[in-house]
Amino acid sequence: MPQGKPEHVPDDGLTTRQRRTQQVLAVHTGTGKGKSTAAFGMALRAWSVGWSIAVFQFVKSPKWKVGEESALRTLGESGKGGAVTWHKMGEGWSWLARPGDERDHAAEAAEGWAQIKRDLASSAYQFYVLDEFTYPMHWGWIDVEDVVNTLRERPPTQHVVITGRYAAPALVDAADLVTEMTKIKHPMDAGRKGQRGIEW
Amino acid sequence: MPQGKPEHVPDDGLTTRQRRTQQVLAVHTGTGKGKSTAAFGMALRAWSVGWSIAVFQFVKSPKWKVGEESALRTLGESGKGGAVTWHKMGEGWSWLARPGDERDHAAEAAEGWAQIKRDLASSAYQFYVLDEFTYPMHWGWIDVEDVVNTLRERPPTQHVVITGRYAAPALVDAADLVTEMTKIKHPMDAGRKGQRGIEW
Repeated sequence: MPQGKPEHVPDDGLTTRQRRTQQVLAVHTGTGKGKSTAAFGMALRAWSVGWSIAVFQFVKSPKWKVGEESALRTLGESGKGGAVTWHKMGEGWSWLARPGDERDHAAEAAEGWAQIKRDLASSAYQFYVLDEFTYPMHWGWIDVEDVVNTLRERPPTQHVVITGRYAAPALVDAADLVTEMTKIKHPMDAGRKGQRGIEW
Repeated sequence: MPQGKPEHVPDDGLTTRQRRTQQVLAVHTGTGKGKSTAAFGMALRAWSVGWSIAVFQFVKSPKWKVGEESALRTLGESGKGGAVTWHKMGEGWSWLARPGDERDHAAEAAEGWAQIKRDLASSAYQFYVLDEFTYPMHWGWIDVEDVVNTLRERPPTQHVVITGRYAAPALVDAADLVTEMTKIKHPMDAGRKGQRGIEW
């Protein structure tokens, strides 16, 4: 669609150029499909401009997002855009190499967030996908205020996309871009099952 | 998130396996961000399972979706997943090589749809992204009934994702999966401009 024009220009003392390179915190929430999918779609754009990308997948899943992971890794390895790093909770966050270590999910989620904080503090990446990161917040495993404060104070320029239902109001408040995905119709309503290639 | 179970099993005479391989018509509509982005995210999954992908971009744009195009083309060329074909309206649909031919947009859109019909009839691809395809329907350039009938009768197995605002009720009715993206908050509301890497 045509490029929009801002409805007003803020009195923030920034030049247009500065405003164009501000870091973005995006949240994809709601009960519909497409929250993670759109985050990975955003990663394509980030990759194409050469930004380094880190994906942190929270919430264990038997199928994870294998298609997206394969595609993003292939792009990272192509050398034509940004590098891609992929972390999965519980299947060993890559900085935790302790096989057989039966940690509980809350502790795993907290470890993941601690690593993200370290990465943000050191400006390790330019584009972060924190996939399904709202859930450990919703379940009380990770402190929302800590997340919001950390994100508000992160060094530039690091863009962050957070996905999942039940985004906390404080997170929505801190975000620049919030989209709610709403289910209008889903194949499962008609008794259809998830399909390879479509659902994972 | 955990794989859902269908709420009921339909009395359609199909086996679970048959139901798992039914072709999907998805529509991403609404006024929020992420409609196209999620469609390209779905294409990552399609690519990863080896499906051939065709993207048809309707509605001319100075910036198109250059990041997504670059990423999908790179994936297609990697040989690790499905092939990728990319068509842009007006910048010469690739089957129309008539430089300097000043056709109007309505005619160009109709040409694009005619090509899609040919491709569907010959099962040319397994996964189609018809990006911003709702607009030429909304503007009366392409007949909604023709689209719906063509899609309903397309040979299997061809998955189709259509994006854009103002999805016609008949299209929503024909779709298996419909998601509405709603804007909760957008940087432009705060006077921020579109950014390279984020918006395109």
